[in-house]
Amino acid sequence: MSRTPDARMRDNQTKRIQERISNVEKHFGKMCQTLAAYGRNSARVRDKADLLVRELGQYSDTETPSLKNALKHFASHLAKIQDYRQAQVERLEVKVIEPLKGYNAVVRRKREDVKTTQSARTRESKQMDQLERTRQKNPSDRQVISQAESDLQRATMDATRTTRQLEETMEEFEKQKMRDLKKILSDFVTVEMSFHAKALELYTLAYHSIHSVEEEEDLKVFRSSLHPPDYLTPANSLEGTASTPFQQQRASGRQASREEEEEDEDESEEEEDEDSEEES
Amino acid sequence: MSRTPDARMRDNQTKRIQERISNVEKHFGKMCQTLAAYGRNSARVRDKADLLVRELGQYSDTETPSLKNALKHFASHLAKIQDYRQAQVERLEVKVIEPLKGYNAVVRRKREDVKTTQSARTRESKQMDQLERTRQKNPSDRQVISQAESDLQRATMDATRTTRQLEETMEEFEKQKMRDLKKILSDFVTVEMSFHAKALELYTLAYHSIHSVEEEEDLKVFRSSLHPPDYLTPANSLEGTASTPFQQQRASGRQASREEEEEDEDESEEEEDEDSEEES
Repeated sequence: MSRTPDARMRDNQTKRIQERISNVEKHFGKMCQTLAAYGRNSARVRDKADLLVRELGQYSDTETPSLKNALKHFASHLAKIQDYRQAQVERLEVKVIEPLKGYNAVVRRKREDVKTTQSARTRESKQMDQLERTRQKNPSDRQVISQAESDLQRATMDATRTTRQLEETMEEFEKQKMRDLKKILSDFVTVEMSFHAKALELYTLAYHSIHSVEEEEDLKVFRSSLHPPDYLTPANSLEGTASTPFQQQRASGRQASREEEEEDEDESEEEEDEDSEEES
Repeated sequence: MSRTPDARMRDNQTKRIQERISNVEKHFGKMCQTLAAYGRNSARVRDKADLLVRELGQYSDTETPSLKNALKHFASHLAKIQDYRQAQVERLEVKVIEPLKGYNAVVRRKREDVKTTQSARTRESKQMDQLERTRQKNPSDRQVISQAESDLQRATMDATRTTRQLEETMEEFEKQKMRDLKKILSDFVTVEMSFHAKALELYTLAYHSIHSVEEEEDLKVFRSSLHPPDYLTPANSLEGTASTPFQQQRASGRQASREEEEEDEDESEEEEDEDSEEES
């Protein structure tokens, strides 16, 4: 097919347009995948922190009262942080990853637009060839030549029109792309900032929790656990003191029923087995 | 071996002490492992973000000037955040994980202390048996009995002394444990907060970067890339415009050498291949 200088210029323009479209497809695709991986890894951090929360809870159950209390409060703040991390991961999916995925459809539509324009130009080219052949075959047949010229003119107008439409549609694509990218990256930032701000708040509370431990009070409790009195009261005992130091006295009948009651209260809690956590 | 009521009481106390030691070993061990996993997963988040930084850089090289600029600045703030994430991971190791690991040695020493005390009590028990046997064998030999009683007395004093030492050492252990736990968890919080605070600062800058895009300026550049003028100047061209729409004109000699110069300047940059990033 022959090509006028104009046609070649338009072909080059189309080539550049196709490159722009492929470029967006490639880079938005990469960023989308990477952000998805970023989200998945953030979820894993959340999982490990949740595990820590559980472990702190289990450990705190074995501890003296004020340490137990401090650890439980600490763990609860840490748990809330993970709730916000969960929200971060979900919002990332909705506001950042999904919109980027949406560019697959946009790219597809732009390629169809390019195709439409290329078809129109191909028809123009064919008409041009047709006119040439007609001129060579029937150089004196003015009517046939006139018809071919007229067909070419229509095809050229169509090609010109679709070319202009493509330029407009591509300008719209570029504008929309800039706005979408601005929004997507902005939203990424605000999702992140929202999480970081909440984390700061809750970590501040966690800090205060862990500093609320009353060492002296707990040491008293510990000391008395090493020296159980005649009456083993719940307030003075720690978890795990399943057997009292008073077995011999029971055999002699002293305070037998009272001690048996208190032994039941002191029975150590079963510590739940952790699901084995394989290292990711 | 026979056991006095006192001896049985001390045995129970020792049992509780051993339980406390094992409890710390178990729970500190679990928390240490979980925090190590938390650190590793945080490092993976950093890696994904670093990958995003690179991809933004590569994509920005293909874009119109103000979008390119905005993306590069955005990426540089994101990169700094990952530097702080790296610091977070390193400090977690030093201030939280290592101290928890250190409890292995503490636990070992406490178990040795318990052993020492148990050995002393075993010796006391043996002396008691010895005395009993001596009394049965030589009931009238006051001298031998007196010797045995004296040996028992020494062993009892020794057992009493080591028991007291064990109680003191365990109280010190409990006190130190509370302080260490307070410090470890505090440091965990401050390491985290330090990172979150920096992230907030840098994300604020990133937000401003992405909002600095000048859409209209960039659209002008884009439009002129679709309609290259007679002179293809670098300012008006985009990456990837390796061939100009002016091939035909060159053949006719117009502005040939000038265009060839500018074509070299516009040669598209090679985009580096990304190391294939397998999904962790």
